[in-house]
Amino acid sequence: MEMTLRDLAERLGVELHGDQDLRVSRVAELGHADPSSLAFLADAKYRPALKGTKAGAVVLRVADLADCPVAALVSPEPHLTFTKAARLLHPTPPVVGGRHPSAVIAEGAKIDPSAWVGALSVIEERVEIGPRVFIGPGSIVGAGCKVGDDSRLVARVTLCEGTLVGKRALLHPGCVIGREGFGFAREGRGWLRVPQLGRVILGDDVEIGVNSAVDRGSLGDTVIGDGVKIDNLVQIGHNVQIGANTAMAACSGISGSTRIGRSCTIAGAVGMAGHLEIGDDVHFTGMAMVTRSFTQPGVYSSGIPAMPSAEWRRAVVRFRQLDDLARRLKRLEEQMAPNDQPAGQDGG
Amino acid sequence: MEMTLRDLAERLGVELHGDQDLRVSRVAELGHADPSSLAFLADAKYRPALKGTKAGAVVLRVADLADCPVAALVSPEPHLTFTKAARLLHPTPPVVGGRHPSAVIAEGAKIDPSAWVGALSVIEERVEIGPRVFIGPGSIVGAGCKVGDDSRLVARVTLCEGTLVGKRALLHPGCVIGREGFGFAREGRGWLRVPQLGRVILGDDVEIGVNSAVDRGSLGDTVIGDGVKIDNLVQIGHNVQIGANTAMAACSGISGSTRIGRSCTIAGAVGMAGHLEIGDDVHFTGMAMVTRSFTQPGVYSSGIPAMPSAEWRRAVVRFRQLDDLARRLKRLEEQMAPNDQPAGQDGG
Amino acid sequence: MEMTLRDLAERLGVELHGDQDLRVSRVAELGHADPSSLAFLADAKYRPALKGTKAGAVVLRVADLADCPVAALVSPEPHLTFTKAARLLHPTPPVVGGRHPSAVIAEGAKIDPSAWVGALSVIEERVEIGPRVFIGPGSIVGAGCKVGDDSRLVARVTLCEGTLVGKRALLHPGCVIGREGFGFAREGRGWLRVPQLGRVILGDDVEIGVNSAVDRGSLGDTVIGDGVKIDNLVQIGHNVQIGANTAMAACSGISGSTRIGRSCTIAGAVGMAGHLEIGDDVHFTGMAMVTRSFTQPGVYSSGIPAMPSAEWRRAVVRFRQLDDLARRLKRLEEQMAPNDQPAGQDGG
Repeated sequence: MEMTLRDLAERLGVELHGDQDLRVSRVAELGHADPSSLAFLADAKYRPALKGTKAGAVVLRVADLADCPVAALVSPEPHLTFTKAARLLHPTPPVVGGRHPSAVIAEGAKIDPSAWVGALSVIEERVEIGPRVFIGPGSIVGAGCKVGDDSRLVARVTLCEGTLVGKRALLHPGCVIGREGFGFAREGRGWLRVPQLGRVILGDDVEIGVNSAVDRGSLGDTVIGDGVKIDNLVQIGHNVQIGANTAMAACSGISGSTRIGRSCTIAGAVGMAGHLEIGDDVHFTGMAMVTRSFTQPGVYSSGIPAMPSAEWRRAVVRFRQLDDLARRLKRLEEQMAPNDQPAGQDGG
Repeated sequence: MEMTLRDLAERLGVELHGDQDLRVSRVAELGHADPSSLAFLADAKYRPALKGTKAGAVVLRVADLADCPVAALVSPEPHLTFTKAARLLHPTPPVVGGRHPSAVIAEGAKIDPSAWVGALSVIEERVEIGPRVFIGPGSIVGAGCKVGDDSRLVARVTLCEGTLVGKRALLHPGCVIGREGFGFAREGRGWLRVPQLGRVILGDDVEIGVNSAVDRGSLGDTVIGDGVKIDNLVQIGHNVQIGANTAMAACSGISGSTRIGRSCTIAGAVGMAGHLEIGDDVHFTGMAMVTRSFTQPGVYSSGIPAMPSAEWRRAVVRFRQLDDLARRLKRLEEQMAPNDQPAGQDGG
Repeated sequence: MEMTLRDLAERLGVELHGDQDLRVSRVAELGHADPSSLAFLADAKYRPALKGTKAGAVVLRVADLADCPVAALVSPEPHLTFTKAARLLHPTPPVVGGRHPSAVIAEGAKIDPSAWVGALSVIEERVEIGPRVFIGPGSIVGAGCKVGDDSRLVARVTLCEGTLVGKRALLHPGCVIGREGFGFAREGRGWLRVPQLGRVILGDDVEIGVNSAVDRGSLGDTVIGDGVKIDNLVQIGHNVQIGANTAMAACSGISGSTRIGRSCTIAGAVGMAGHLEIGDDVHFTGMAMVTRSFTQPGVYSSGIPAMPSAEWRRAVVRFRQLDDLARRLKRLEEQMAPNDQPAGQDGG
């Protein structure tokens, strides 16, 4: 969509320097922009690209204004302002209500006339679908599910029976919400499946990535809070609770009954044991192995970064000897101590 | 389903204390139960909730009987008994035979009349589907597959050509059984795909989770034993064999040709190299990195639990110095030894 | 397909020892082969099986020829030659052009008449599908996608809008190519989605495994080079670039904007942070945690191999004490040094 810089600055509530009538129609990177593009500068390391940019305008901080060879939109948060501009210039097309003739829709399903039900999708009995919802091709909405206003099931999404989806959800292809979780009782050598009677409840503005899974609760519900963003290939076990605005990157897994607070960030491939309590504003770095509760805000990490294999092999051998090494160190300290100074505080 | 406690106790083969004519219709947690609910107490930490429970009845051990304010079903294995009760009170509805008109079914496919073939599913040629099988919506059953009695493909399951599924399988949405595994020969700088000619054979009572993958064998077959339970987002490589009643939690991956014994438990996000031999009753804790065979029963672990990042960064630096630290310790011991006592047993 | 050894040797360009008119019709393992089978011996550890093989012929190195009791095809690369033979004996059936009547195909989509569009698949507007392409059942090809000659979407593949697929691709069930990546700007406590305007471009001879995800670029494109092979359950973030002939095993994840060189191998469950630079011929072993760039060819590793849990627990406690242990060792060295010899080179 084409807009003048004047319109854009007004809509974004930021100050404009330069030609107010210039029109931009898309966003681009500083180094690849043309005069019809809006670019941005947020990170100092891209500053060299500013001087030579061919963008029509750049969103930047006031400190960078003097170096900008083209029009500028000045913002204390250039990435946020640029994101808002990108959403204005590249809007999601509005949903056109209707039903593809190949969709299989149970009698009695309540579908708002402004919602779209896509090709080869299945809507089972007692489903309720709100205004402007987009049900992409190949999706399955199980019996009794409710999908709130403006939610978007991109394609091939599966909502199992009774799942509740809030407003403005974005559910990516292949995700499966509400299957029966992994619950068994031991019966002799075998396993007896425990009926999984709870639901999944997704708050408003929730996003679930490609091929991610959120299991339904066993007795209570699995609850994903408002504004939670979950990336691809993530596993959420039964009865997990995740607080508002927490974000989880790809390939992570949360075991059953763990409760995660608000505004946490969980980087890629993090694994969490079950029945843990994670507080608000807790941040885990990539591949962290979370085996206990963390209730205090902070950044937590684990794992060994990759190194040349030969070096790694030697260190791994020593890792297995660590307890022995520590005991031997303690013994040496004790030998030295009488003559010299007290041994370390460690009990060995 | 509503049952009297008398009926329930009889069906479960346990002793009943309290009103035999009381009716319960569902299961619930001790703290959320009402008089129409059955609850249970298995773990001592929930004992405080027993006193105030509003459940109609509680399944518990004889030791807890005196503290129970309501009717009680006494069992040495309360969780197992409760699970059996839950299955009686919340039975899976029986499969109603038939075919949804939107299903695409190849001529000559043999489908038992008591089986259900769901909406927008595909049944290819030479398929055989047994009695009371449930083929959920959007599933694909490839040419020559066989699915045993009472198996349940919940929705959007893909069985690739020639896959054999035993009785009472439970296959969750998005799982893919029998694709050609990841086998290549090096050809110069590139890769030449090795034809994958084996099958996947699932035993009886097997469960495969959401979006999990089981690859077909390269020359022989990939074989998943009776009673094996596999959670979501699990990868099983070609020619893997898994023994009866082994359970694998979510996000784990087993590389090609590894053989796992019976009654193992593999926690979440465990990774196993290929061509390993894992014995019976071997247990791996979460995120374990399995790089060699483990033939003896036992519990095996690896990984570094998460800690505050600043502390982790210091430890990681030292990890890379471990071999040097060990050598320096050895040297100190040697310096001390002549005067004092023998050095550590480690060869440095 | 049945072939004489003479034909096979000619087609493979290798030397034949034994009955030229013998016919073989399939490949098999040395130990399970019958006279109609071709087997191979590449790894010395299988040499004992050669003597008793019942295969019709064996592909082997010249050094093993004397020990071969049956006909032999002599090759310096037995596995490669055997793979080529397997591809001749077990050819993929040619694609028969046409459209299943249940497919939903947008008007104006350009589909080569020699391509097959399978049951219950969806082809959206402006799609271009080349000669001999196979679109398996349940696949979704989004608006404006192009799929090159001889590519194969096995089943239930999702190509999101605008994705470009080269020639001879092999895309396995459940993979999702081109969804909008995980990009957000912070807005107060919440997250504002950044429009993802780039595409995914797959080169020629690319393979993507079951339920893997390749996200579209944010501003630029995500680019997967020619001959790249990606296994199951792999995550590729937005704007990642992967060089030709790199192979990635299952359960790995690459964060956004990381660039990987040519001819790399990435074993299972490797995790890579974002914005890294990985050179050509870099190899990561299983579960490696890649947190920095590696520009030099070589093999890199991390992680702690599994060990008995009791031993692991002790080592983990010591890991957290590592910095303290190292400082104490340094102190001891300093105490010793004045009398004896210089301390270690480490700064403590």
